[in-house]
Amino acid sequence: MAKMLNGFAIDLGGTKLAAARFEANKLVDKVQMPTQASAPFGDLCNGIGELLNQLGFQQNDRLGVALTGRIDQAGHWSAVNGGTLPKIKNIDVRNALRVRFGQNITIINDATAAACGEAHFGAGQGVSAFGYITISTGVGGGIVLNGHPITSPNGLAGHIGFMRSPLGNAKCGSGRFGTVESIAGGRAIAQLAAEAGHSDYDAKQVFQAHLEGHIWASEIINRAAEAIAIQIADLTSIFGLERVAIGGSIGLADGYIELIINHLQNEPALFQPEILPAHLGGDSPLFGALCA
Amino acid sequence: MAKMLNGFAIDLGGTKLAAARFEANKLVDKVQMPTQASAPFGDLCNGIGELLNQLGFQQNDRLGVALTGRIDQAGHWSAVNGGTLPKIKNIDVRNALRVRFGQNITIINDATAAACGEAHFGAGQGVSAFGYITISTGVGGGIVLNGHPITSPNGLAGHIGFMRSPLGNAKCGSGRFGTVESIAGGRAIAQLAAEAGHSDYDAKQVFQAHLEGHIWASEIINRAAEAIAIQIADLTSIFGLERVAIGGSIGLADGYIELIINHLQNEPALFQPEILPAHLGGDSPLFGALCA
Repeated sequence: MAKMLNGFAIDLGGTKLAAARFEANKLVDKVQMPTQASAPFGDLCNGIGELLNQLGFQQNDRLGVALTGRIDQAGHWSAVNGGTLPKIKNIDVRNALRVRFGQNITIINDATAAACGEAHFGAGQGVSAFGYITISTGVGGGIVLNGHPITSPNGLAGHIGFMRSPLGNAKCGSGRFGTVESIAGGRAIAQLAAEAGHSDYDAKQVFQAHLEGHIWASEIINRAAEAIAIQIADLTSIFGLERVAIGGSIGLADGYIELIINHLQNEPALFQPEILPAHLGGDSPLFGALCA
Repeated sequence: MAKMLNGFAIDLGGTKLAAARFEANKLVDKVQMPTQASAPFGDLCNGIGELLNQLGFQQNDRLGVALTGRIDQAGHWSAVNGGTLPKIKNIDVRNALRVRFGQNITIINDATAAACGEAHFGAGQGVSAFGYITISTGVGGGIVLNGHPITSPNGLAGHIGFMRSPLGNAKCGSGRFGTVESIAGGRAIAQLAAEAGHSDYDAKQVFQAHLEGHIWASEIINRAAEAIAIQIADLTSIFGLERVAIGGSIGLADGYIELIINHLQNEPALFQPEILPAHLGGDSPLFGALCA
């Protein structure tokens, strides 16, 4: 699957809006701003336009757009996690972006894009059954088989943070109870810290407390890593994964992948794919947006 | 995806070996015998030859073979569940069958075959994201997207009975702890009955006791159906499934699908695909064996 990336890419997540310009598979320029998470779609569109202007985008240039949430086959966009982009419900995003930026646009879920980016240009190169899990505020990911991402007509495919975990015991933003996200996402980690009497800690601070040897924090981080390890074995039973790349601010935090690998060793050998850090870091959705 | 089934099909499961002849998509003849589960591969091969003879098979006729267990891309076959076909470990099955029955042979996992059979000729017609779950001694299944089954180079893909369940608390034959199979498979149901003081009950008898209103049995059956409902929502988060067909002797038992549907209603609407009984009953692997 030789891909050639040329053009512009957008990555619109719950906290960050990034834009990049690619030339011959190289990311040559990148700009970003915070996502106005509670803004209506028009404002998000203006933010995209502003960043693209800074990069020299011209109407009808090739543009790949990665969006958090669910984009169905009709090009309609809805938030899945109620806590992220609450104003985004059944927006006719493909048409709206084409009217504004030209016809040469493709749209893809951000985690699916990240999985594609890693599969073609990062940690997933050389294997045919590849999984990508990103762990930050929430837990997301994508599966790429023989170079093609798993997608579905309703755009839900790939929302693997909403799988149940045997360790989960709270609801996450999807409305499901006991999901992987409800135990391993950053929002959940802060919540679990609060329940342990540390209500002023965000996920990053909980992680820092874990690294400093605070047992209450290590218990939370360890259980989160165990939930991810179980999820990896689950996905391996479904897809026969050969390799899984871990991304996201929590996923790539010091020592976290080692924790996942330790827990994964409790599974039978057949359910232990190779675990690697994502190679493209936060840029994987930008690479993947142009793979679609 | 127009398929045209002509030729012969084999379905080799843990308890039953079946063979069928197809003409223009119709199953026109079928024979079967019990599987000699602890027999070496040569004996299983002889059983296949015997059934094919009865159906008038001639060397090099088109033959589709569905096998329980894992067939890798090199055509090597291994049992995954230690309790099923214990002698089958890394058997060079594709070559062996071609030497014996001719070159016109394809080989596929039995549950993947059943999923394909239902997708093209049964309950999965008309949808593009389709799941199939078979519940009998164990729990298996397959996912068919746009007419193509999910497979993997190592042949593990589709072993969805080995996903974890939040309700599981025992090991199944895969070696994993707390799997869906460990709570919803027939072997597990008999084991759970024994733990509840009814050691002389097999799964069928537990189900009968449930239908007769025995609370101990209804608790076991209900928890099994809940585990399947949670699994369906998990698979829907991964694949965006539109429809799931339920097969197998337990899956198709009186009132079981209704139990699954009841439990599924506890999930958010997005995670509730349509649930139907498999249309081809026990013949779905035979149909699917010729779809490969």
